[in-house]
Amino acid sequence: MRIKGTFLDEISHDIPHQNWGRKEWEKDFQFMKEAGIDTVILIRAGYGKWQTFHSNVLTREEGAYRPPVDLVNMFLELADQYNMDFYFGLYDSGKYWIKGDYQKEVDVNKKFIDEVWSKYGEKSAFKGWYICQEISRKTGRIIDLYADLAHHCKAISNELPVLISPYIDGIKNVSQYLTDTSKKSNAISLDQHEAEWNEIFDGIKNVVDVVAFQDGHVSFDDLESFLRINKSLADKHGLECWTNSESFDRDMPIKFMPIKWEKLLLKLKLASLAGIDNAITFEFSHFMSPQSAYLQAGHLYNRYMEYLEQLKSKNNGFHKVGYSI
Amino acid sequence: MRIKGTFLDEISHDIPHQNWGRKEWEKDFQFMKEAGIDTVILIRAGYGKWQTFHSNVLTREEGAYRPPVDLVNMFLELADQYNMDFYFGLYDSGKYWIKGDYQKEVDVNKKFIDEVWSKYGEKSAFKGWYICQEISRKTGRIIDLYADLAHHCKAISNELPVLISPYIDGIKNVSQYLTDTSKKSNAISLDQHEAEWNEIFDGIKNVVDVVAFQDGHVSFDDLESFLRINKSLADKHGLECWTNSESFDRDMPIKFMPIKWEKLLLKLKLASLAGIDNAITFEFSHFMSPQSAYLQAGHLYNRYMEYLEQLKSKNNGFHKVGYSI
Amino acid sequence: MRIKGTFLDEISHDIPHQNWGRKEWEKDFQFMKEAGIDTVILIRAGYGKWQTFHSNVLTREEGAYRPPVDLVNMFLELADQYNMDFYFGLYDSGKYWIKGDYQKEVDVNKKFIDEVWSKYGEKSAFKGWYICQEISRKTGRIIDLYADLAHHCKAISNELPVLISPYIDGIKNVSQYLTDTSKKSNAISLDQHEAEWNEIFDGIKNVVDVVAFQDGHVSFDDLESFLRINKSLADKHGLECWTNSESFDRDMPIKFMPIKWEKLLLKLKLASLAGIDNAITFEFSHFMSPQSAYLQAGHLYNRYMEYLEQLKSKNNGFHKVGYSI
Repeated sequence: MRIKGTFLDEISHDIPHQNWGRKEWEKDFQFMKEAGIDTVILIRAGYGKWQTFHSNVLTREEGAYRPPVDLVNMFLELADQYNMDFYFGLYDSGKYWIKGDYQKEVDVNKKFIDEVWSKYGEKSAFKGWYICQEISRKTGRIIDLYADLAHHCKAISNELPVLISPYIDGIKNVSQYLTDTSKKSNAISLDQHEAEWNEIFDGIKNVVDVVAFQDGHVSFDDLESFLRINKSLADKHGLECWTNSESFDRDMPIKFMPIKWEKLLLKLKLASLAGIDNAITFEFSHFMSPQSAYLQAGHLYNRYMEYLEQLKSKNNGFHKVGYSI
Repeated sequence: MRIKGTFLDEISHDIPHQNWGRKEWEKDFQFMKEAGIDTVILIRAGYGKWQTFHSNVLTREEGAYRPPVDLVNMFLELADQYNMDFYFGLYDSGKYWIKGDYQKEVDVNKKFIDEVWSKYGEKSAFKGWYICQEISRKTGRIIDLYADLAHHCKAISNELPVLISPYIDGIKNVSQYLTDTSKKSNAISLDQHEAEWNEIFDGIKNVVDVVAFQDGHVSFDDLESFLRINKSLADKHGLECWTNSESFDRDMPIKFMPIKWEKLLLKLKLASLAGIDNAITFEFSHFMSPQSAYLQAGHLYNRYMEYLEQLKSKNNGFHKVGYSI
Repeated sequence: MRIKGTFLDEISHDIPHQNWGRKEWEKDFQFMKEAGIDTVILIRAGYGKWQTFHSNVLTREEGAYRPPVDLVNMFLELADQYNMDFYFGLYDSGKYWIKGDYQKEVDVNKKFIDEVWSKYGEKSAFKGWYICQEISRKTGRIIDLYADLAHHCKAISNELPVLISPYIDGIKNVSQYLTDTSKKSNAISLDQHEAEWNEIFDGIKNVVDVVAFQDGHVSFDDLESFLRINKSLADKHGLECWTNSESFDRDMPIKFMPIKWEKLLLKLKLASLAGIDNAITFEFSHFMSPQSAYLQAGHLYNRYMEYLEQLKSKNNGFHKVGYSI
């Protein structure tokens, strides 16, 4: 199991910004490439009033602030340069759909999608869409929101693939603004998770192509069971099932730092056991990059590269990897 | 708009210490100088039992611990060496005024001011005073405390200027010991802020020279309005109005990390729009320095230096700066 | 007062992992050696389902995950190479004894101790045991747990010494999953602390050799009194009394970062005043190492090395050290 893709955490809303310029971003794409990453996914192109490029739609309709640079253009150029697929994450108002007005979230995004496609659709690296409204449960009109946005993305772009990356409402689904790392009750059961996502997948199966559940919200002991359900449901409804193997550690009082390699390795193994072939991660630049402000990330990169080397040189499955020291 | 000054965060009480020796501090003054900083402000010379130099007053009256080095002397020497103005931050007991005994806070500080002036008053870089008791509202006898301390500082030092740096009791005025980044209610209104500070300024206008409100406790949307009120009130009462543009990010679960450059740029722009000419920051060494333990800070420094370069080469206002990537 | 030993924070459960490989660990042992450290203590060999080597006992009885490397073997080799004593920290289930089943915690550990001794007992650096169940009060059957485990360790290993490192139920004994840094009530009194530990020491004195209380849970003002009680009680019952002088800062909202050198120096001084001769720390690799991900740690190392140099060159007690800048 290899990590084939990573999110690009712009606009971040809970992880401190690294203040990189183009030089650092280019260097990071090189590090990604060396690690076998061929897909980059913009986590969101706008959040509230912050935007990754000067969007006329977001500026006019949402009063968005003028950004100092055009990150989307830069990411598209770098993806092209390093032969990667770029997935475009949509706009998250941070309010409309949160407060129940799903239609308003859809409406502003449709105009935004039109603008984005008109502005960047010709770029060769533009290979897909990512719906950035993160969900875990079948609440409100979330199926309609996903279906409407995905349909609009595909229709305008000659059927480019649409990716979603939900989370599981598990024991570690705790606000990042709390210091707890687990909640005492109300973690979702396997059955309830299966029932709700069966319904959601049924409602979006014709327009969403890939689902990559975040793998950090459940205990390590429960992870394999959830991964198996996710895979089985995706198969049933004809979606591709990847894993979003988080590279930060949800068990620590500091939110968030790079994960211990042993934990990431375990999660990748469990995904493989569940029959999943592709992994992406949230995310490379803070948590796995040799130039991350968190130096633990560079060491995680080294451990991961050693693992890739072992896979290659031994020409065997990763299940046999271990005990290298 | 350029950042002309920075606090020196000694004694810090909520930001982890960098454990620098003189070598690192000298290097940091060089970095500051290159970034155009000509003013350094000691955030406080003592806090509780911790002190920045061996003060007889604090040792005798407060039982202060013996410090391993004389930071005040070092800062004064470095400020002189790099041709900067040094502002001396007073003593914060962390208890007397907090518990309502303003007079005791004043009394110990008066003796302390006498000792400080006697010990360091001859130093060429000693150019002003900073009253370190941070406030946001007209509570208790805060006007008397400010007026008494400022008067004493000026009287003993042949009228050296006195600086204060209050905060706004805004939506982000949340304890650093909570992980929330905003409070749900009780953020102060513009009118109430104006009314209270009108009264405070009226009480201190003859002895306080400069006010630099912290700019991080209100939403970005409300900031310009607060800045305009601050400027207008300061003008009315004859105080200079600077902005204290915080270089750490108040929106993150980790407290505190360097701010995203885009946010700092926006805040500086808004201060300029409000008619403010001078900015200081809290603070350079943790959040903007290339040798900060937080590597995001070095990148922020690079972004800021590029911005200064753009201002210079284009010979135009910063409003036109942008889209450099 | 010098720091003679450090914990090795494997398995960590609240401090983000640095993802070091053998190369970084070897480098760290060199840094330790240069700083005069001659003792390394594995904080715990297993925690819940995580283990530091592939233990048949923990795998079979606790369902422990397969670890990617054998850390115990590596630490033993490095300790031998750098002529250090290695203390082996036991297994902490994180549940049995917490929930009151002390016997189950003892039983699994006895089998684990047998396995460990059989596997690593011949290694020349294996010089002692560390009981990793951290306690502060005489609760439940903790005396029996300590006595039983210590007895078993000594019996199987020809009386190798046993170390414990309790904490004090002081004002800073706050969950790391809360952001508070102090609690408002219920800090233990000196008398109560003395009474409970008199009883605990009485119950373990024949099988536990060294006690090193953690020094970070009480206020700096109260520390000397607690240290004196600890030393006096240990003397009374025939235990060696060291201090575990924590090298991270308990007063900061970020949990946890390297401590300010001035604070560590003060704590070492107070321990010396209380008649304690030996200090260990939790822990070198995150908080004092030049290659720590927290760059403050490298500066702390430099300050500490300067202090050692002063002790050496002046050939005097550390009480006279200070004012070096």
